[in-house]
Amino acid sequence: MKLHILGCHAATPSMKGNPTSQVLEIRDHIFLIDCGEGTQVQLRKHKVKFSRINHIFISHLHGDHFFGLPGLISTFQLLGREKELHIYGPEGIKEVILLLLRVGNSWTGYQLVFHELKETIPEMIFEDEKVKVSTIPLKHRVYTNGFLYEEKKKERGLNMEAVAKYKIDKAYFKNIKKGKDGLSASGEKVVNLDLTFDPPAPKSYAYCSDTAYDESKIDFIAGADLLYHEATFLSTEASLAQKTGHSTASEAARIARKAGVKKLILGHFSTRYKDKDLFLKEAIIQFPDTEMAEDGKVFEI
Amino acid sequence: MKLHILGCHAATPSMKGNPTSQVLEIRDHIFLIDCGEGTQVQLRKHKVKFSRINHIFISHLHGDHFFGLPGLISTFQLLGREKELHIYGPEGIKEVILLLLRVGNSWTGYQLVFHELKETIPEMIFEDEKVKVSTIPLKHRVYTNGFLYEEKKKERGLNMEAVAKYKIDKAYFKNIKKGKDGLSASGEKVVNLDLTFDPPAPKSYAYCSDTAYDESKIDFIAGADLLYHEATFLSTEASLAQKTGHSTASEAARIARKAGVKKLILGHFSTRYKDKDLFLKEAIIQFPDTEMAEDGKVFEI
Repeated sequence: MKLHILGCHAATPSMKGNPTSQVLEIRDHIFLIDCGEGTQVQLRKHKVKFSRINHIFISHLHGDHFFGLPGLISTFQLLGREKELHIYGPEGIKEVILLLLRVGNSWTGYQLVFHELKETIPEMIFEDEKVKVSTIPLKHRVYTNGFLYEEKKKERGLNMEAVAKYKIDKAYFKNIKKGKDGLSASGEKVVNLDLTFDPPAPKSYAYCSDTAYDESKIDFIAGADLLYHEATFLSTEASLAQKTGHSTASEAARIARKAGVKKLILGHFSTRYKDKDLFLKEAIIQFPDTEMAEDGKVFEI
Repeated sequence: MKLHILGCHAATPSMKGNPTSQVLEIRDHIFLIDCGEGTQVQLRKHKVKFSRINHIFISHLHGDHFFGLPGLISTFQLLGREKELHIYGPEGIKEVILLLLRVGNSWTGYQLVFHELKETIPEMIFEDEKVKVSTIPLKHRVYTNGFLYEEKKKERGLNMEAVAKYKIDKAYFKNIKKGKDGLSASGEKVVNLDLTFDPPAPKSYAYCSDTAYDESKIDFIAGADLLYHEATFLSTEASLAQKTGHSTASEAARIARKAGVKKLILGHFSTRYKDKDLFLKEAIIQFPDTEMAEDGKVFEI
């Protein structure tokens, strides 16, 4: 699993930083998470193949999280896209995109599939044989969801030495990988544990931006391998954070600690702070395994 | 008069070029013309003071000419703008902007004044004592206007030496600058031409993008000091230009020649051409005083 930070700054795009957008590579999928203005240029800069993006997840309808989406949809059209594009986001996103296409008389040649969200409890919004994605309801000024991306458990790994030793026919391999016992050439039963290895533990990534400090999400993200949590402010601006539905670095770290995640990434920094190290200093007191997001940075899990 | 090219490339924003946007400085006004994605970053890069922009002119509702507008409106809000902002553009632009504000629950604290355009003949859309702005109906795939920006004639310049020689009282200066004759201390009439200089000729700038080759606009832009005309394609793609409602460099130059403008700037280049010199080569055969637009370039008139 690989997370590319395309933009991690709050509010307005500037020469120094891009608004929110990320790409998550997870089991053959390239998921785009949020899409602030300038995202398509960031995608090019960081050499993400446009054509591999089939699913876009929008947390909420504030401009710094989705004003890059109309342009990206137009660019897909110019590139001759034919595959359908799935867009997950708050109710209203379909009306916006369709209106923009209509006023420009610029209908897409590929199908746009909208998955409009309005639940205030977690729901699974995507699933295939390898991955599932669920919402994490967040507490912000408008209806907002974070997203939990989970790998599914892989099949058990075949122990080729053991299989050879017991002379097990290939015809059984498929079931053995699923956990069934094997049958040796001599007709003896061989227990699955003697023929297989444990598969690698499935990984998970929780994306929480934008959100006020809110313990009700802790259960949904408990034990995640990686948590990206917004930290718009420092503790000195705690009351401003509360007023605007954002978090401080310290609050983000407290959520990470209480949820027992393995690693925390801070992002969505307000431009008011010149010294970004202050975010890290504030967070590691609560949760040592914290890193700072940075436009262009890649995290491997 | 000063024209800042913020972006002059067709279709999609990329690392190499920005979609259309320009800033025209004309007699104390800072007019923003079109606003493709990324315009606000270009404004910062080229040090245009956001707060001095009070009038935005949008030619048409294709994304590469206005997908930067919602973000700019949000940024004005974040910067605490109080002055009203005038937006001139095709019918529909108000619905788009209001919907985007509504879904984000992000109403502006300053007033947005929409001037929606639907006429297919030229109309004056802005006028004060120094400047007037008219539409130039263009022929494109959707309803599109170019814009003609004209300085008004300044008052006649007072010849201080002549005024002293005839001992003319200050009380007459205001009328003399308006073209009236003067009265000397001895009561003699002094004709205006003996007391004044011609004012500098008022300047004009015609913006024509996007448009197919169309001679019907020649009358409206005749004699302009500066014409920006789109040249998306080279003549080798003339039929594609016609099909998509765009112009070739040669066609842009032909319009400049027939309209007798003083200088032509080519822009809106398709990304398909690596060698931009080919545009210039093609145009100067028809119209020698041609220059190429370039992101960040400033033209003084």
